[in-house]
Amino acid sequence: MSKELTKRSEDYSKWYNDLVVKADLADHSAVKGCMVIKPGGYAIWENMQKALDKMFKDTGHVNAYFPLFIPKSLFEAEEKNAEGFAKECAVVTHYRLKTNPNDKTKLIVDPEAKLEEELIVRPTSEAIIWNTYKGWIQSYRDLPILVNQWANVVRWEMRTRLFLRTTEFLWQEGHTAHATKEEAIAETKQMLEVYADFVENWMAVPVVKGVKTPNERFAGADDTYCIEALMQDGKALQAGTSHFLGQNFAKAFDVKYVTKDNKQEHVWATSWGVSTRLMGALIMSHSDDHGLIIPPKLAPTQVVIVPIYKGDEGLAKVSEVANVIKKKLQAKGITVKYDDRDSQRPGWKFADYELKGVPVRIAIGERDLANGTVELARRDNLSKETVSIEGIDTLIEKLLEDIQDNLFKRAKQRTQNLTTRVDTYEEFKKVLEEKTGFIYAHWDGTPETEEKIKEETKATIRCIPLNNEQEAGVCIYSGKPSTQRVLFAKAY
Amino acid sequence: MSKELTKRSEDYSKWYNDLVVKADLADHSAVKGCMVIKPGGYAIWENMQKALDKMFKDTGHVNAYFPLFIPKSLFEAEEKNAEGFAKECAVVTHYRLKTNPNDKTKLIVDPEAKLEEELIVRPTSEAIIWNTYKGWIQSYRDLPILVNQWANVVRWEMRTRLFLRTTEFLWQEGHTAHATKEEAIAETKQMLEVYADFVENWMAVPVVKGVKTPNERFAGADDTYCIEALMQDGKALQAGTSHFLGQNFAKAFDVKYVTKDNKQEHVWATSWGVSTRLMGALIMSHSDDHGLIIPPKLAPTQVVIVPIYKGDEGLAKVSEVANVIKKKLQAKGITVKYDDRDSQRPGWKFADYELKGVPVRIAIGERDLANGTVELARRDNLSKETVSIEGIDTLIEKLLEDIQDNLFKRAKQRTQNLTTRVDTYEEFKKVLEEKTGFIYAHWDGTPETEEKIKEETKATIRCIPLNNEQEAGVCIYSGKPSTQRVLFAKAY
Repeated sequence: MSKELTKRSEDYSKWYNDLVVKADLADHSAVKGCMVIKPGGYAIWENMQKALDKMFKDTGHVNAYFPLFIPKSLFEAEEKNAEGFAKECAVVTHYRLKTNPNDKTKLIVDPEAKLEEELIVRPTSEAIIWNTYKGWIQSYRDLPILVNQWANVVRWEMRTRLFLRTTEFLWQEGHTAHATKEEAIAETKQMLEVYADFVENWMAVPVVKGVKTPNERFAGADDTYCIEALMQDGKALQAGTSHFLGQNFAKAFDVKYVTKDNKQEHVWATSWGVSTRLMGALIMSHSDDHGLIIPPKLAPTQVVIVPIYKGDEGLAKVSEVANVIKKKLQAKGITVKYDDRDSQRPGWKFADYELKGVPVRIAIGERDLANGTVELARRDNLSKETVSIEGIDTLIEKLLEDIQDNLFKRAKQRTQNLTTRVDTYEEFKKVLEEKTGFIYAHWDGTPETEEKIKEETKATIRCIPLNNEQEAGVCIYSGKPSTQRVLFAKAY
Repeated sequence: MSKELTKRSEDYSKWYNDLVVKADLADHSAVKGCMVIKPGGYAIWENMQKALDKMFKDTGHVNAYFPLFIPKSLFEAEEKNAEGFAKECAVVTHYRLKTNPNDKTKLIVDPEAKLEEELIVRPTSEAIIWNTYKGWIQSYRDLPILVNQWANVVRWEMRTRLFLRTTEFLWQEGHTAHATKEEAIAETKQMLEVYADFVENWMAVPVVKGVKTPNERFAGADDTYCIEALMQDGKALQAGTSHFLGQNFAKAFDVKYVTKDNKQEHVWATSWGVSTRLMGALIMSHSDDHGLIIPPKLAPTQVVIVPIYKGDEGLAKVSEVANVIKKKLQAKGITVKYDDRDSQRPGWKFADYELKGVPVRIAIGERDLANGTVELARRDNLSKETVSIEGIDTLIEKLLEDIQDNLFKRAKQRTQNLTTRVDTYEEFKKVLEEKTGFIYAHWDGTPETEEKIKEETKATIRCIPLNNEQEAGVCIYSGKPSTQRVLFAKAY
């Protein structure tokens, strides 16, 4: 198996695909547009889940599970939401197969097992959940409902890419119900902060927090908040969204509650989600031409120890020291793998762990034993140094923190370098072509201008940043007055 | 809301349904046969997942994720497996909806978006996984593959019951690939032991380990190992299965590996799974007419503290002590909830926590404060005692262990009481009618006899117990010679 990657400078897109497959993160499957998440990729996703799940619980949420299928009549109840997803729905129409009478080894769909009402494979669960909440909510005492679900969803995509856009993907979707508009908006914003905290402090990916334009809103939302990150190629990636749904779903499903003053009111809603798409953001933010770079806080293996030896006796000597180091590191809560496989040479192992993004590598040779030292290599900057075995646990604990910080700073610096303020449409187009990245520019606030710019340049308004500086200016496209710059970019 | 449950003695089946719904574990959904797992139920399932996942990882397995959909042509590749599941498959035939031209507020399936090949919603994933493994396995160096998946699956069931049999359910499915038959069989048995360990030591439900008769095997397996538990009503419940799949899937999907001596061999397979059905086993094993009883090791809340007070000042005094106790317990790793809600009376809370199965309840009244005592109530036997606050953390730590042990012993005793050895068919039928439970009886080993007994009595052979005592006898039905007793029961 060739582990050679395409270089980023040659073909960024091919580099990404190569990396995902060769680093054993995911692969294409026999089902068009669906991926297999391989153990190497799934272990990172599990770490993401664990951290996020704790953050959700720490903010008062509980998990639940709702059906995979949504009856068509429920699906179409909230019109905007239905319209937004109708074109990409997998539809179950039958519930049985039977033997093909013309070929006994084959199966055909049994025409007699046609469903009276078709079932939609959930592209998102607002409909089935709000239909359920109707039964859970009578009075203000039943509110708020703070529920999250970890699930798979299906959106029939025509052009797919591993992790970034797949027909089936894994995600979490929070669905909360509140007595007041203010409380629902506060929840929407709180969850945006949770996402930003996770993406920045666990994934080491800096983000811009903002709110979407009406054009780019989630179908059925009154407002969509988002976090946007910038990849190495200067394209933006929407890393998470948090929606204020107003009373739209409560009205569609007739969910009312009795207030303290005994009035009937519709309930206020939010929903918020991040998906396996985050894996794409993680990979594209940090990795290099040697392979994956995983931030230590999410790395399934944080440290790998590779022995360099001759013969069984040599291995025995090295292993004795390696196992002592391993135990010391484990005592600090660090995940360590000692790779004493005899089937591969050290050089092969070095390259393989670089490809797979293990943050720290320790190499121990027989010569090191006499000196009481080992060779320590950082994956983030590929630097190596010889260090004393004494105190190595404290050193590595600190090193892992340094790597985590360094990755964030590096990505932050890159994002800053790739962020430009422009005042004219010519400048805008020039930056998009030559430099790419985030572009702050004045916009007149109309969907027409937004559409025109998108048509002409493929750049979209990623968001109106939160706490945006107010500044008088003129729209780069229409020349009309504007009060603030918005964030443009080409996006994944 | 009435929290009154039907009594077990009146209608066991209704008691179960009442309990599942009223204790907020799960509920029916708008989708026929599919359930909503409510936060109270999902929290128990999460604890089950956590314990099982650790056991799988401790035995060398890793998690991965495979597509929800299986193309029909792959699904039908392993004939027995396909035949076994064909009659209960949800089938996706279209990938788009469109606006109904006759009613713009409604959607219809877009006939132009018909899939060339239908997709089956996975009822189990052997087909898609073995089609994937084909790409992963070339040489003996690639083996074993020890993969597990946490996922939802769909089997179109006509008669469903919450947790016990639902159209969609959550489960884990392990799928392993091995170089030799012996290794695959060892894996099959190992995972059976893991399941037995979990069900007995976490769920406190005693099981009989055994192997299924050919009639009852998983479709596509050479051997199905299982654990069988006995519910309070004397019906058996299959709690987990572990399948030795031989080379059936390797042959169906042409998965071969190169041996050390450079020969091509088909790979050996196992698969094993437990599902949200375990929730049903947990509920039915321990609970009583007051509600749920959850073994402490799986209880989302292990201890609840209820204050008994008058006025804000009274509450403040009680809360001070309650919070000290809470912290002490948390320091021991015990999950505690202090329920100081003012909206409900203590009596209501007591009943509610009994309904929801919290293992230990502490009540603290203002009078207790002077004495330095609290009232401690056990959910398993409903006993109460007044205990000193001093050393209460150690006491409760021990108490939780006692409750866990007691639940297992009680279930074990009940299973023993409901286990009978019979030597004649008359006796067999009499026990089935009057006493129910597990019945050990001689069987001639033929599928014909097994079928006849099932037809006439509804009892099935649950398993041929492992390490079964060999004993000469005659089949209760045919009178033909038999070498061992097998385990019969009516089953869920």
